[in-house]
Amino acid sequence: VNPVPLDQRYFEDYASGSIFECGSICVEESAIIAFARLYDPQDFHTDPAAAARSVYGGLIASGWHTVALTMRLLVANYLSSAASLGSPGIDELRWIRPVRPADTLRVRVTILETKRSRSKPDRGMVRGLIEVSNQNGELVMSLKAINLLRCRDPAPASTGAELA
Amino acid sequence: VNPVPLDQRYFEDYASGSIFECGSICVEESAIIAFARLYDPQDFHTDPAAAARSVYGGLIASGWHTVALTMRLLVANYLSSAASLGSPGIDELRWIRPVRPADTLRVRVTILETKRSRSKPDRGMVRGLIEVSNQNGELVMSLKAINLLRCRDPAPASTGAELA
Repeated sequence: VNPVPLDQRYFEDYASGSIFECGSICVEESAIIAFARLYDPQDFHTDPAAAARSVYGGLIASGWHTVALTMRLLVANYLSSAASLGSPGIDELRWIRPVRPADTLRVRVTILETKRSRSKPDRGMVRGLIEVSNQNGELVMSLKAINLLRCRDPAPASTGAELA
Repeated sequence: VNPVPLDQRYFEDYASGSIFECGSICVEESAIIAFARLYDPQDFHTDPAAAARSVYGGLIASGWHTVALTMRLLVANYLSSAASLGSPGIDELRWIRPVRPADTLRVRVTILETKRSRSKPDRGMVRGLIEVSNQNGELVMSLKAINLLRCRDPAPASTGAELA
């Protein structure tokens, strides 16, 4: 557990190897259908009867809905409002098991790597492995996210890995 | 332009090297804010005044909103309803330029690779490079997506690359 309150956390508080537990969220059937109608209107996301006849044997959440719910937990419990400068990208996003109505998703981040910027020494890059599990402890999704974060101390770090 | 209507397209109709133009969509400020309030409530996505003071100099869409709007165009113009079996994952998602209110996004897919499954010969894997550009022709986002698609001909292909 990180001792610094989220809204006072800066780049320096995201240490490589540390783990952030980001809470959990229940996935409601109505939310699965509402999201999918807007953004991913495939039968197995929008129509319980058609989904039952599909390879999934029942309604499943759009993978992008699972990502969006995960993001909500990351904003609430991982990304500092004082420091977050957005993200340049994501790698190795994997949908491992279907997410179904009434599943409860739990999100955990493990910091893989941090690098202070050399060209913009007021910020740094944090790369995290984000793992999403269901109520049975099964991994349903994982991804590696890069986030840019403002530093508490605007002077450049004297040692350690640096970002161009 | 693919000559086969989308709802009659199968794995065999997604040839390596071919390009699918998937149409365009306008990004409204109200939609940027509504999406971000639900899924990515950071100031630069939800609050125009705070966003103006941020590093982005104004409101920008959540990267996940850009993905969701892209997915809507992919379902409408790329993923066959007869053949789509979902996706195991995404690689190299990159947010290259900010997406701002009133931007119009255009989506194009270039097929990078296709592989029929050996273990389940009624389906195959299609890997596509998805590129999203704005009204000035600037690339704003790219990603590589893997999609599983049902084959028209359920008998295994006699030659060519195969998926385990």
